[in-house]
Amino acid sequence: MALKKIAYQGEPGSFSEVAAEQLLKGNKRLVPLDSLEQVFAAIHHARADYAVVPIENSLVGSIHKTYDLLLDHKLHIIGETQLRVVHCLIAPKGTAFSRITKAFSHPVALEQCRNFFAKHTSIAPVSYYDTAGAVKMLAESGLPSAAAVAGPHAADTYGMSILRKSIEDEKSNHTRFILLSRKPVTVRKQAKTSLVFSMKNMPGALFKALSVFALRDIDLTRIESRPVRVKAWQYYFYVDLAGSVTEKRVKRALEHLGEITHFIRILGSYSRQV
Amino acid sequence: MALKKIAYQGEPGSFSEVAAEQLLKGNKRLVPLDSLEQVFAAIHHARADYAVVPIENSLVGSIHKTYDLLLDHKLHIIGETQLRVVHCLIAPKGTAFSRITKAFSHPVALEQCRNFFAKHTSIAPVSYYDTAGAVKMLAESGLPSAAAVAGPHAADTYGMSILRKSIEDEKSNHTRFILLSRKPVTVRKQAKTSLVFSMKNMPGALFKALSVFALRDIDLTRIESRPVRVKAWQYYFYVDLAGSVTEKRVKRALEHLGEITHFIRILGSYSRQV
Repeated sequence: MALKKIAYQGEPGSFSEVAAEQLLKGNKRLVPLDSLEQVFAAIHHARADYAVVPIENSLVGSIHKTYDLLLDHKLHIIGETQLRVVHCLIAPKGTAFSRITKAFSHPVALEQCRNFFAKHTSIAPVSYYDTAGAVKMLAESGLPSAAAVAGPHAADTYGMSILRKSIEDEKSNHTRFILLSRKPVTVRKQAKTSLVFSMKNMPGALFKALSVFALRDIDLTRIESRPVRVKAWQYYFYVDLAGSVTEKRVKRALEHLGEITHFIRILGSYSRQV
Repeated sequence: MALKKIAYQGEPGSFSEVAAEQLLKGNKRLVPLDSLEQVFAAIHHARADYAVVPIENSLVGSIHKTYDLLLDHKLHIIGETQLRVVHCLIAPKGTAFSRITKAFSHPVALEQCRNFFAKHTSIAPVSYYDTAGAVKMLAESGLPSAAAVAGPHAADTYGMSILRKSIEDEKSNHTRFILLSRKPVTVRKQAKTSLVFSMKNMPGALFKALSVFALRDIDLTRIESRPVRVKAWQYYFYVDLAGSVTEKRVKRALEHLGEITHFIRILGSYSRQV
Protein backbone atom coordinates (compact mmCIF):
# COMPACT_ATOMS: atom_id res chain seq x y z
CA MET A 1 0.00 0.00 0.00
CA ALA A 2 1.28 3.45 -0.88
CA LEU A 3 2.32 5.65 2.04
CA LYS A 4 -0.06 8.49 2.86
CA LYS A 5 1.40 11.81 1.80
CA ILE A 6 1.08 14.81 4.14
CA ALA A 7 1.82 18.29 2.84
CA TYR A 8 2.90 21.11 5.18
CA GLN A 9 4.60 24.48 4.90
CA GLY A 10 8.20 24.84 6.06
CA GLU A 11 11.43 22.91 6.13
CA PRO A 12 11.85 19.45 7.73
CA GLY A 13 12.14 19.99 11.50
CA SER A 14 9.53 22.76 11.57
CA PHE A 15 6.66 22.98 14.04
CA SER A 16 4.23 21.97 11.26
CA GLU A 17 6.15 18.72 10.83
CA VAL A 18 5.84 17.96 14.55
CA ALA A 19 2.10 18.71 14.31
CA ALA A 20 1.86 16.31 11.33
CA GLU A 21 3.53 13.56 13.42
CA GLN A 22 0.97 14.13 16.19
CA LEU A 23 -2.03 14.24 13.87
CA LEU A 24 -1.28 11.13 11.78
CA LYS A 25 0.36 8.20 13.53
CA GLY A 26 2.19 5.45 11.69
CA ASN A 27 4.08 5.38 8.43
CA LYS A 28 3.67 8.34 6.13
CA ARG A 29 5.53 10.51 3.66
CA LEU A 30 6.07 14.12 4.71
CA VAL A 31 5.93 16.66 1.87
CA PRO A 32 7.48 20.01 2.93
CA LEU A 33 6.44 22.93 0.68
CA ASP A 34 7.36 26.61 0.54
CA SER A 35 3.98 28.30 1.00
CA LEU A 36 0.49 27.68 2.37
CA GLU A 37 -0.87 28.24 -1.16
CA GLN A 38 1.27 25.33 -2.39
CA VAL A 39 0.08 23.15 0.49
CA PHE A 40 -3.60 23.77 -0.36
CA ALA A 41 -2.91 23.23 -4.08
CA ALA A 42 -1.09 19.94 -3.36
CA ILE A 43 -4.04 18.40 -1.52
CA HIS A 44 -6.61 19.92 -3.86
CA HIS A 45 -4.91 18.35 -6.90
CA ALA A 46 -4.40 15.04 -5.03
CA ARG A 47 -0.60 15.34 -5.02
CA ALA A 48 -0.98 14.89 -1.23
CA ASP A 49 -3.57 12.94 0.79
CA TYR A 50 -3.59 15.27 3.77
CA ALA A 51 -2.37 18.72 4.73
CA VAL A 52 -1.38 20.12 8.12
CA VAL A 53 -1.64 23.90 8.47
CA PRO A 54 -1.44 26.38 11.37
CA ILE A 55 -4.73 28.20 12.01
CA GLU A 56 -4.11 30.23 15.15
CA ASN A 57 -1.33 31.26 17.53
CA SER A 58 -2.11 32.27 21.10
CA LEU A 59 0.13 35.37 20.90
CA VAL A 60 -0.17 36.46 17.26
CA GLY A 61 -3.83 35.56 16.63
CA SER A 62 -5.46 33.94 13.61
CA ILE A 63 -3.44 32.90 10.58
CA HIS A 64 -5.54 34.78 8.04
CA LYS A 65 -4.05 33.14 5.00
CA THR A 66 -5.28 29.77 6.26
CA TYR A 67 -8.81 31.12 6.82
CA ASP A 68 -8.88 32.65 3.33
CA LEU A 69 -7.50 29.48 1.69
CA LEU A 70 -10.11 27.34 3.50
CA LEU A 71 -12.78 29.39 1.75
CA ASP A 72 -11.09 29.03 -1.66
CA HIS A 73 -10.79 25.20 -1.53
CA LYS A 74 -13.47 22.60 -0.83
CA LEU A 75 -11.54 20.59 1.75
CA HIS A 76 -12.58 19.12 5.11
CA ILE A 77 -11.04 19.68 8.52
CA ILE A 78 -10.70 16.20 10.05
CA GLY A 79 -8.48 16.89 13.08
CA GLU A 80 -6.73 19.46 15.25
CA THR A 81 -3.82 19.60 17.67
CA GLN A 82 -1.82 22.24 19.50
CA LEU A 83 1.89 22.64 20.14
CA ARG A 84 3.68 24.75 22.68
CA VAL A 85 6.16 26.92 20.83
CA VAL A 86 9.62 26.44 22.43
CA HIS A 87 12.53 28.34 20.92
CA CYS A 88 16.09 27.03 21.36
CA LEU A 89 19.51 28.43 20.50
CA ILE A 90 20.94 25.78 18.15
CA ALA A 91 24.50 25.46 16.78
CA PRO A 92 26.78 22.80 15.25
CA LYS A 93 27.99 20.19 17.76
CA GLY A 94 31.01 21.35 19.77
CA THR A 95 30.30 25.09 19.40
CA ALA A 96 30.77 27.01 22.66
CA PHE A 97 28.00 29.41 23.70
CA SER A 98 30.60 32.13 24.33
CA ARG A 99 31.71 32.04 20.67
CA ILE A 100 28.24 32.80 19.20
CA THR A 101 27.93 36.30 17.68
CA LYS A 102 24.89 35.85 15.37
CA ALA A 103 21.56 34.02 15.62
CA PHE A 104 19.50 33.41 12.46
CA SER A 105 15.73 32.84 12.55
CA HIS A 106 12.32 33.93 11.32
CA PRO A 107 11.70 37.54 12.49
CA VAL A 108 8.61 36.49 14.52
CA ALA A 109 10.71 33.93 16.45
CA LEU A 110 13.50 36.50 17.08
CA GLU A 111 10.89 39.00 18.29
CA GLN A 112 9.55 36.36 20.72
CA CYS A 113 13.07 36.02 22.29
CA ARG A 114 13.58 39.74 22.90
CA ASN A 115 14.62 39.31 26.56
CA PHE A 116 17.28 36.75 25.62
CA PHE A 117 18.87 39.13 23.10
CA ALA A 118 18.60 42.07 25.53
CA LYS A 119 20.58 40.02 28.07
CA HIS A 120 23.12 38.60 25.59
CA THR A 121 24.09 41.71 23.63
CA SER A 122 27.10 39.96 22.06
CA ILE A 123 24.65 37.85 19.99
CA ALA A 124 23.01 39.75 17.13
CA PRO A 125 19.61 38.51 15.87
CA VAL A 126 19.57 38.10 12.04
CA SER A 127 16.36 37.62 10.02
CA TYR A 128 15.93 34.44 7.98
CA TYR A 129 12.89 33.09 6.07
CA ASP A 130 12.20 30.08 8.33
CA THR A 131 13.18 28.77 11.80
CA ALA A 132 14.03 25.18 10.79
CA GLY A 133 15.42 26.57 7.51
CA ALA A 134 17.99 28.57 9.53
CA VAL A 135 19.18 25.37 11.27
CA LYS A 136 19.41 23.61 7.88
CA MET A 137 21.42 26.51 6.44
CA LEU A 138 23.89 26.36 9.39
CA ALA A 139 24.23 22.59 9.02
CA GLU A 140 25.02 22.98 5.30
CA SER A 141 27.18 26.12 5.38
CA GLY A 142 29.26 25.44 8.49
CA LEU A 143 29.28 29.20 9.27
CA PRO A 144 31.50 29.75 12.33
CA SER A 145 30.21 31.55 15.48
CA ALA A 146 26.64 31.47 14.15
CA ALA A 147 23.56 29.89 15.74
CA ALA A 148 19.89 29.55 14.83
CA VAL A 149 16.69 29.97 16.84
CA ALA A 150 14.21 27.12 16.23
CA GLY A 151 12.26 24.33 17.92
CA PRO A 152 14.16 21.46 19.61
CA HIS A 153 13.15 18.95 16.86
CA ALA A 154 15.04 21.06 14.28
CA ALA A 155 18.28 20.32 16.22
CA ASP A 156 17.52 16.58 16.03
CA THR A 157 16.61 16.74 12.33
CA TYR A 158 19.95 18.28 11.33
CA GLY A 159 22.19 16.67 14.00
CA MET A 160 22.90 19.95 15.80
CA SER A 161 23.27 20.89 19.49
CA ILE A 162 20.88 22.85 21.68
CA LEU A 163 23.01 25.47 23.48
CA ARG A 164 20.10 27.08 25.35
CA LYS A 165 16.57 25.68 25.62
CA SER A 166 13.30 27.65 25.92
CA ILE A 167 14.68 31.15 25.34
CA GLU A 168 11.24 32.57 24.40
CA ASP A 169 9.94 35.47 26.57
CA GLU A 170 6.39 34.19 26.93
CA LYS A 171 5.98 30.55 27.94
CA SER A 172 2.24 30.57 27.13
CA ASN A 173 2.84 30.48 23.37
CA HIS A 174 0.81 27.83 21.57
CA THR A 175 -0.05 27.21 17.94
CA ARG A 176 -3.17 25.33 16.89
CA PHE A 177 -2.90 23.20 13.72
CA ILE A 178 -5.64 21.55 11.66
CA LEU A 179 -5.54 18.41 9.52
CA LEU A 180 -7.21 18.66 6.10
CA SER A 181 -8.52 15.96 3.79
CA ARG A 182 -10.58 15.81 0.61
CA LYS A 183 -13.10 13.56 2.45
CA PRO A 184 -14.95 14.28 5.71
CA VAL A 185 -14.76 11.98 8.75
CA THR A 186 -17.49 10.95 11.20
CA VAL A 187 -16.85 11.86 14.83
CA ARG A 188 -19.31 11.24 17.62
CA LYS A 189 -17.70 12.01 20.95
CA GLN A 190 -16.03 15.30 21.94
CA ALA A 191 -16.57 16.69 18.48
CA LYS A 192 -15.90 20.19 17.24
CA THR A 193 -17.41 21.63 14.04
CA SER A 194 -16.02 24.54 12.03
CA LEU A 195 -18.12 26.53 9.59
CA VAL A 196 -18.14 29.82 7.71
CA PHE A 197 -21.09 32.03 6.82
CA SER A 198 -21.94 35.52 5.62
CA MET A 199 -25.11 37.52 5.90
CA LYS A 200 -26.74 40.73 4.80
CA ASN A 201 -25.97 43.83 6.84
CA MET A 202 -29.24 43.85 8.76
CA PRO A 203 -29.71 45.07 12.32
CA GLY A 204 -28.79 42.42 14.86
CA ALA A 205 -27.64 40.02 12.12
CA LEU A 206 -24.74 38.48 14.01
CA PHE A 207 -26.82 38.17 17.18
CA LYS A 208 -29.50 36.31 15.22
CA ALA A 209 -26.90 34.00 13.72
CA LEU A 210 -25.40 33.18 17.12
CA SER A 211 -28.85 32.70 18.65
CA VAL A 212 -29.44 29.59 16.50
CA PHE A 213 -26.70 27.93 18.56
CA ALA A 214 -27.50 29.50 21.96
CA LEU A 215 -31.18 28.47 21.70
CA ARG A 216 -30.00 24.86 21.44
CA ASP A 217 -27.29 25.11 24.15
CA ILE A 218 -24.54 24.65 21.57
CA ASP A 219 -21.37 26.30 22.82
CA LEU A 220 -19.21 28.38 20.47
CA THR A 221 -15.49 28.02 21.12
CA ARG A 222 -14.27 30.57 18.57
CA ILE A 223 -15.43 33.30 16.23
CA GLU A 224 -13.32 35.09 13.63
CA SER A 225 -14.31 37.55 10.91
CA ARG A 226 -12.61 38.09 7.55
CA PRO A 227 -13.55 40.66 4.89
CA VAL A 228 -15.69 39.76 1.87
CA ARG A 229 -13.16 41.14 -0.58
CA VAL A 230 -15.56 42.29 -3.29
CA LYS A 231 -17.88 44.13 -0.86
CA ALA A 232 -16.29 46.68 1.46
CA TRP A 233 -17.25 46.29 5.16
CA GLN A 234 -19.02 42.96 4.76
CA TYR A 235 -17.63 39.91 6.50
CA TYR A 236 -17.35 36.16 6.52
CA PHE A 237 -17.75 34.78 10.04
CA TYR A 238 -15.83 31.63 10.92
CA VAL A 239 -17.29 29.78 13.90
CA ASP A 240 -16.12 26.73 15.86
CA LEU A 241 -18.79 24.98 17.92
CA ALA A 242 -18.83 22.05 20.35
CA GLY A 243 -20.68 19.20 18.60
CA SER A 244 -20.82 17.20 15.39
CA VAL A 245 -22.91 17.68 12.24
CA THR A 246 -24.28 14.17 12.90
CA GLU A 247 -26.05 15.39 16.07
CA LYS A 248 -29.69 16.35 15.60
CA ARG A 249 -29.46 19.65 17.52
CA VAL A 250 -26.42 20.73 15.45
CA LYS A 251 -28.20 19.76 12.20
CA ARG A 252 -31.24 21.81 13.21
CA ALA A 253 -29.12 24.79 14.25
CA LEU A 254 -27.41 24.73 10.84
CA GLU A 255 -30.76 24.53 9.01
CA HIS A 256 -31.94 27.48 11.09
CA LEU A 257 -28.72 29.37 10.28
CA GLY A 258 -29.29 28.63 6.57
CA GLU A 259 -32.61 30.51 6.77
CA ILE A 260 -30.95 33.77 7.84
CA THR A 261 -27.60 33.73 6.02
CA HIS A 262 -26.97 34.01 2.30
CA PHE A 263 -23.86 31.81 2.38
CA ILE A 264 -22.89 28.96 4.65
CA ARG A 265 -20.31 26.17 4.40
CA ILE A 266 -19.39 23.43 6.85
CA LEU A 267 -15.61 23.13 7.02
CA GLY A 268 -15.70 19.87 8.98
CA SER A 269 -16.51 17.98 12.19
CA TYR A 270 -13.51 16.50 14.02
CA SER A 271 -12.31 15.32 17.38
CA ARG A 272 -11.82 18.25 19.77
CA GLN A 273 -8.31 18.55 21.24
CA VAL A 274 -8.04 22.24 22.12
CA MET B 1 -2.07 79.76 19.19
CA ALA B 2 0.13 76.73 18.57
CA LEU B 3 -0.81 74.57 15.60
CA LYS B 4 -2.38 71.22 16.47
CA LYS B 5 0.06 68.39 15.85
CA ILE B 6 -1.18 65.19 14.19
CA ALA B 7 0.98 62.08 14.23
CA TYR B 8 0.65 59.36 11.57
CA GLN B 9 2.71 56.48 10.23
CA GLY B 10 4.34 56.79 6.81
CA GLU B 11 6.03 59.39 4.64
CA PRO B 12 4.42 62.67 3.55
CA GLY B 13 2.05 61.87 0.67
CA SER B 14 0.85 58.62 2.24
CA PHE B 15 -2.80 57.55 2.55
CA SER B 16 -2.62 58.26 6.32
CA GLU B 17 -1.74 61.87 5.54
CA VAL B 18 -4.78 62.21 3.25
CA ALA B 19 -6.92 60.70 6.02
CA ALA B 20 -5.48 63.25 8.49
CA GLU B 21 -6.46 66.08 6.11
CA GLN B 22 -10.02 64.73 5.95
CA LEU B 23 -10.32 64.19 9.70
CA LEU B 24 -9.00 67.57 10.89
CA LYS B 25 -9.77 70.61 8.78
CA GLY B 26 -7.83 73.86 9.03
CA ASN B 27 -4.24 74.62 9.93
CA LYS B 28 -2.26 71.85 11.55
CA ARG B 29 1.21 70.38 11.74
CA LEU B 30 1.58 66.89 10.31
CA VAL B 31 4.06 64.65 12.12
CA PRO B 32 5.06 61.63 9.96
CA LEU B 33 6.62 58.77 11.99
CA ASP B 34 8.12 55.40 11.09
CA SER B 35 5.91 53.00 13.02
CA LEU B 36 2.47 52.73 14.61
CA GLU B 37 4.21 52.20 17.98
CA GLN B 38 5.89 55.60 17.59
CA VAL B 39 2.56 57.21 16.64
CA PHE B 40 0.85 55.89 19.79
CA ALA B 41 3.85 56.90 21.94
CA ALA B 42 3.84 60.44 20.46
CA ILE B 43 0.23 61.13 21.42
CA HIS B 44 0.51 59.29 24.74
CA HIS B 45 3.48 61.47 25.78
CA ALA B 46 1.78 64.62 24.43
CA ARG B 47 4.36 65.16 21.68
CA ALA B 48 1.31 65.18 19.37
CA ASP B 49 -2.28 66.33 20.00
CA TYR B 50 -3.92 63.77 17.72
CA ALA B 51 -3.07 60.61 15.86
CA VAL B 52 -4.53 59.15 12.66
CA VAL B 53 -4.12 55.38 12.26
CA PRO B 54 -5.54 52.74 9.87
CA ILE B 55 -7.79 50.21 11.61
CA GLU B 56 -9.18 48.08 8.79
CA ASN B 57 -8.82 47.46 5.06
CA SER B 58 -11.66 45.99 3.05
CA LEU B 59 -9.35 43.49 1.30
CA VAL B 60 -6.72 42.69 3.92
CA GLY B 61 -8.89 42.84 7.06
CA SER B 62 -8.17 44.33 10.47
CA ILE B 63 -4.88 46.06 11.23
CA HIS B 64 -4.08 43.98 14.31
CA LYS B 65 -1.25 46.18 15.52
CA THR B 66 -3.70 49.09 15.84
CA TYR B 67 -6.16 46.96 17.84
CA ASP B 68 -3.39 45.78 20.18
CA LEU B 69 -1.99 49.30 20.63
CA LEU B 70 -5.48 50.66 21.43
CA LEU B 71 -5.56 48.25 24.37
CA ASP B 72 -2.08 49.28 25.56
CA HIS B 73 -2.79 53.05 25.61
CA LYS B 74 -5.64 54.94 27.28
CA LEU B 75 -6.63 57.06 24.31
CA HIS B 76 -10.04 57.97 22.86
CA ILE B 77 -11.33 57.42 19.34
CA ILE B 78 -12.95 60.74 18.35
CA GLY B 79 -13.50 60.28 14.62
CA GLU B 80 -13.32 57.96 11.61
CA THR B 81 -13.08 58.23 7.84
CA GLN B 82 -12.50 55.94 4.89
CA LEU B 83 -10.40 56.30 1.77
CA ARG B 84 -10.58 54.41 -1.47
CA VAL B 85 -7.13 53.00 -2.18
CA VAL B 86 -6.10 54.06 -5.69
CA HIS B 87 -2.67 52.98 -6.92
CA CYS B 88 -0.90 54.97 -9.64
CA LEU B 89 2.29 54.44 -11.61
CA ILE B 90 4.35 57.52 -10.75
CA ALA B 91 7.65 58.72 -12.30
CA PRO B 92 9.68 61.94 -12.63
CA LYS B 93 8.15 64.51 -14.99
CA GLY B 94 8.96 63.85 -18.65
CA THR B 95 9.56 60.11 -18.23
CA ALA B 96 7.95 58.06 -21.02
CA PHE B 97 5.88 55.03 -19.97
CA SER B 98 7.74 52.88 -22.53
CA ARG B 99 11.08 53.53 -20.77
CA ILE B 100 9.97 52.19 -17.36
CA THR B 101 11.59 48.84 -16.42
CA LYS B 102 11.14 48.84 -12.60
CA ALA B 103 8.34 49.88 -10.23
CA PHE B 104 9.10 50.31 -6.51
CA SER B 105 6.41 50.04 -3.83
CA HIS B 106 5.26 48.35 -0.64
CA PRO B 107 4.78 44.60 -1.34
CA VAL B 108 1.05 44.78 -0.45
CA ALA B 109 0.52 47.54 -3.04
CA LEU B 110 2.47 45.61 -5.71
CA GLU B 111 0.40 42.51 -4.93
CA GLN B 112 -2.78 44.55 -5.42
CA CYS B 113 -1.66 45.50 -8.96
CA ARG B 114 -0.95 41.94 -10.10
CA ASN B 115 -2.97 42.25 -13.35
CA PHE B 116 -1.09 45.39 -14.34
CA PHE B 117 2.29 43.65 -13.97
CA ALA B 118 1.00 40.52 -15.74
CA LYS B 119 0.05 42.72 -18.72
CA HIS B 120 3.22 44.87 -18.68
CA THR B 121 5.94 42.23 -18.32
CA SER B 122 8.68 44.72 -19.21
CA ILE B 123 8.09 46.44 -15.82
CA ALA B 124 9.46 44.48 -12.84
CA PRO B 125 7.83 45.07 -9.43
CA VAL B 126 10.45 45.80 -6.72
CA SER B 127 9.66 45.76 -2.97
CA TYR B 128 10.15 48.94 -0.94
CA TYR B 129 9.21 49.79 2.66
CA ASP B 130 6.50 52.36 1.88
CA THR B 131 4.38 53.53 -1.09
CA ALA B 132 4.91 57.29 -0.66
CA GLY B 133 8.47 56.54 0.48
CA ALA B 134 9.15 54.96 -2.93
CA VAL B 135 8.03 58.17 -4.69
CA LYS B 136 10.23 60.23 -2.35
CA MET B 137 13.22 57.96 -3.07
CA LEU B 138 12.71 58.38 -6.85
CA ALA B 139 12.41 62.16 -6.48
CA GLU B 140 15.67 62.28 -4.51
CA SER B 141 17.73 59.69 -6.39
CA GLY B 142 16.78 60.51 -9.98
CA LEU B 143 17.03 56.79 -10.85
CA PRO B 144 16.41 56.47 -14.62
CA SER B 145 13.69 54.17 -16.05
CA ALA B 146 12.23 53.61 -12.58
CA ALA B 147 8.71 54.31 -11.34
CA ALA B 148 6.84 53.92 -8.05
CA VAL B 149 3.36 52.65 -7.21
CA ALA B 150 1.55 54.95 -4.76
CA GLY B 151 -1.56 57.08 -4.26
CA PRO B 152 -2.12 60.14 -6.52
CA HIS B 153 -1.36 62.60 -3.65
CA ALA B 154 2.19 61.20 -3.42
CA ALA B 155 2.81 62.43 -7.00
CA ASP B 156 1.64 65.94 -5.97
CA THR B 157 3.72 65.91 -2.78
CA TYR B 158 6.98 65.22 -4.61
CA GLY B 159 6.23 67.03 -7.91
CA MET B 160 6.13 63.83 -9.99
CA SER B 161 3.91 62.67 -12.89
CA ILE B 162 1.17 60.05 -12.88
CA LEU B 163 1.86 57.80 -15.90
CA ARG B 164 -1.07 55.44 -15.26
CA LYS B 165 -3.92 56.02 -12.81
CA SER B 166 -5.87 53.36 -10.86
CA ILE B 167 -3.80 50.31 -11.77
CA GLU B 168 -5.11 48.27 -8.80
CA ASP B 169 -6.92 44.98 -9.65
CA GLU B 170 -9.81 45.44 -7.24
CA LYS B 171 -11.59 48.79 -7.29
CA SER B 172 -13.48 48.04 -4.06
CA ASN B 173 -10.39 48.59 -1.90
CA HIS B 174 -11.02 50.89 1.06
CA THR B 175 -9.13 51.64 4.25
CA ARG B 176 -10.86 52.89 7.38
CA PHE B 177 -8.88 55.31 9.58
CA ILE B 178 -9.58 56.51 13.12
CA LEU B 179 -8.67 59.77 14.83
CA LEU B 180 -7.28 59.49 18.37
CA SER B 181 -7.08 62.04 21.15
CA ARG B 182 -6.22 62.03 24.85
CA LYS B 183 -9.69 63.49 25.59
CA PRO B 184 -13.10 62.10 24.58
CA VAL B 185 -15.65 64.11 22.56
CA THR B 186 -19.42 64.27 22.90
CA VAL B 187 -21.40 63.21 19.83
CA ARG B 188 -25.17 63.01 19.71
CA LYS B 189 -26.31 62.32 16.17
CA GLN B 190 -25.20 59.39 14.00
CA ALA B 191 -22.79 58.22 16.66
CA LYS B 192 -20.70 55.07 16.71
CA THR B 193 -19.12 53.66 19.86
CA SER B 194 -16.12 51.32 20.00
CA LEU B 195 -15.35 49.15 23.01
CA VAL B 196 -13.31 46.11 24.01
CA PHE B 197 -14.16 43.42 26.54
CA SER B 198 -13.10 39.95 27.65
CA MET B 199 -14.98 37.28 29.55
CA LYS B 200 -14.58 33.94 31.17
CA ASN B 201 -14.83 30.89 28.92
CA MET B 202 -18.38 29.99 29.89
CA PRO B 203 -20.98 28.37 27.64
CA GLY B 204 -22.76 30.90 25.48
CA ALA B 205 -20.55 33.74 26.78
CA LEU B 206 -20.31 35.69 23.54
CA PHE B 207 -24.02 35.24 22.85
CA LYS B 208 -24.83 36.65 26.31
CA ALA B 209 -22.52 39.61 25.71
CA LEU B 210 -24.13 40.41 22.35
CA SER B 211 -27.63 39.98 23.80
CA VAL B 212 -27.16 43.10 26.00
CA PHE B 213 -27.17 45.09 22.76
CA ALA B 214 -29.77 43.08 20.83
CA LEU B 215 -32.27 43.32 23.73
CA ARG B 216 -32.07 47.12 23.41
CA ASP B 217 -32.15 47.20 19.59
CA ILE B 218 -28.58 48.48 19.45
CA ASP B 219 -27.00 47.44 16.16
CA LEU B 220 -23.45 46.11 16.05
CA THR B 221 -21.51 47.21 12.98
CA ARG B 222 -18.32 45.24 13.64
CA ILE B 223 -16.82 42.54 15.83
CA GLU B 224 -13.17 41.50 15.97
CA SER B 225 -11.37 39.14 18.34
CA ARG B 226 -7.72 39.30 19.41
CA PRO B 227 -5.89 36.86 21.67
CA VAL B 228 -5.35 37.54 25.38
CA ARG B 229 -1.60 36.98 25.14
CA VAL B 230 -1.01 35.60 28.65
CA LYS B 231 -3.88 33.09 28.44
CA ALA B 232 -3.93 30.74 25.46
CA TRP B 233 -7.30 30.55 23.63
CA GLN B 234 -8.91 33.43 25.47
CA TYR B 235 -9.91 36.53 23.54
CA TYR B 236 -10.55 40.24 23.68
CA PHE B 237 -13.64 41.17 21.67
CA TYR B 238 -13.67 44.57 19.97
CA VAL B 239 -17.16 45.77 19.12
CA ASP B 240 -18.45 48.81 17.21
CA LEU B 241 -22.09 49.75 17.83
CA ALA B 242 -24.48 52.35 16.47
CA GLY B 243 -25.07 54.87 19.27
CA SER B 244 -23.29 57.10 21.79
CA VAL B 245 -22.35 56.47 25.42
CA THR B 246 -24.45 59.53 26.27
CA GLU B 247 -27.64 57.66 25.22
CA LYS B 248 -29.53 55.99 28.06
CA ARG B 249 -30.03 52.65 26.26
CA VAL B 250 -26.31 52.45 25.41
CA LYS B 251 -25.38 53.30 29.02
CA ARG B 252 -27.69 50.56 30.29
CA ALA B 253 -26.37 48.03 27.79
CA LEU B 254 -22.82 48.77 28.93
CA GLU B 255 -23.79 48.41 32.62
CA HIS B 256 -25.41 45.09 31.73
CA LEU B 257 -22.29 44.03 29.83
CA GLY B 258 -20.18 44.97 32.87
CA GLU B 259 -22.12 42.41 34.93
CA ILE B 260 -21.07 39.51 32.71
CA THR B 261 -17.55 40.44 31.59
CA HIS B 262 -14.40 40.65 33.69
CA PHE B 263 -12.86 43.44 31.64
CA ILE B 264 -14.48 46.22 29.61
CA ARG B 265 -13.16 49.50 28.21
CA ILE B 266 -14.91 52.13 26.10
CA LEU B 267 -12.57 53.24 23.32
CA GLY B 268 -14.74 56.20 22.32
CA SER B 269 -17.97 57.55 20.86
CA TYR B 270 -17.63 59.47 17.60
CA SER B 271 -19.48 60.59 14.50
CA ARG B 272 -20.21 57.62 12.24
CA GLN B 273 -18.85 57.97 8.68
CA VAL B 274 -18.50 54.35 7.53
